Amino acid sequence: MTQLLRVQNFGVSRDGFGTGENQSLERPFGNADPGELFAWAGATASWVGRHEPGGSRGLDDYFTRDFAHNIGAEIMGRNKFGPQRGPWQDHEWRGWWGDEPPFHTPVFVMTHHPRPSFTLSDTTFHFVGGDPATVLEQAREAARGKDVRLGGGVSTVRDFLAADLVDTLHVAVSPVEIGAGVRLWESPDELLDRFHLDVVPSPRSGVTHHLFWRK
Amino acid sequence: MTQLLRVQNFGVSRDGFGTGENQSLERPFGNADPGELFAWAGATASWVGRHEPGGSRGLDDYFTRDFAHNIGAEIMGRNKFGPQRGPWQDHEWRGWWGDEPPFHTPVFVMTHHPRPSFTLSDTTFHFVGGDPATVLEQAREAARGKDVRLGGGVSTVRDFLAADLVDTLHVAVSPVEIGAGVRLWESPDELLDRFHLDVVPSPRSGVTHHLFWRK
Repeated sequence: MTQLLRVQNFGVSRDGFGTGENQSLERPFGNADPGELFAWAGATASWVGRHEPGGSRGLDDYFTRDFAHNIGAEIMGRNKFGPQRGPWQDHEWRGWWGDEPPFHTPVFVMTHHPRPSFTLSDTTFHFVGGDPATVLEQAREAARGKDVRLGGGVSTVRDFLAADLVDTLHVAVSPVEIGAGVRLWESPDELLDRFHLDVVPSPRSGVTHHLFWRK
Repeated sequence: MTQLLRVQNFGVSRDGFGTGENQSLERPFGNADPGELFAWAGATASWVGRHEPGGSRGLDDYFTRDFAHNIGAEIMGRNKFGPQRGPWQDHEWRGWWGDEPPFHTPVFVMTHHPRPSFTLSDTTFHFVGGDPATVLEQAREAARGKDVRLGGGVSTVRDFLAADLVDTLHVAVSPVEIGAGVRLWESPDELLDRFHLDVVPSPRSGVTHHLFWRK
């Protein structure tokens, strides 16, 4: 069974930005409004952040319900984990997600700076150096035969695309403009030399799902 | 956690038929060609019948990969199980699926005629009488907290819809005409009084996915 590296439910603006400028503790997405980028996901029944009944079970829900399906580990860049840069100063900071992170698997945080692993609920965060291929190898082993999710942020997705390690990529393009920040692409066409693409407008949320898989 | 009753990857023709006339051992779908109704699914990477690498991982694959996701039991009508009618004559017939049926859960076959349960690989078939609500109760218990799949055939889906027991319904409408046989609907609009509907054309296969969920 192939172990895929999958990017899932990755939100970008119509102009291709996944996050804005000036990330901070208060604003994980900088000047960009995550409420706009992820409104489509929040409206679904299977959204990981949903704690009350309700939500749609149409097209958009197929994507949120697939988030953890057959995933055995996640890789994320340091900027998805938190706003600190350079050597770790504050070990009290343990990610944006509180005591019950939504991953439920080992998570590999890419950083040049060592830090001990820790566990919150059923998610263990490991802090690892090395290039994308090396980190992917570690994550695959931890995933015990299941797939690995590449969680972002934008620069991390770009690095893994540049190293040609991504097997499937789901990007939800929202009808908003961000204008400045970290850009995934100028245009989705940039990936067509290496990927098949299905472009699927959601009839409900206004998002356009872009589904890439390796040729 | 709600236990849903889900119809998934149910194929019908543009004129609303899920199967043709004259079902037989050789032709589970009667005069209809299942190759036409399910071509979209067979082309995907996650199709249960796929034994070789390859296949698409775009929109259509989200549906085939969701087939077994969080499913703990299946309910099927007798005509999905096989072409025999009336009291069971031939206990050698154990379904269309060979020694490794693609269900991997308990399966409840609805019939007025008693027959002992049997197990093939990790699928156990039970033969049960009673109305849809009673059978659903048995299947829910067997599913141990997971959802129940309603597998068909057409008449069985109609019976459960009439009893208002279906929570989500995915129907893939193929661009073919069957003309006679067993009809799911004259038009999908018949369900709009009770269900939300997302209509999603596949950019790849020509199928139009209809995603219903209870209002």
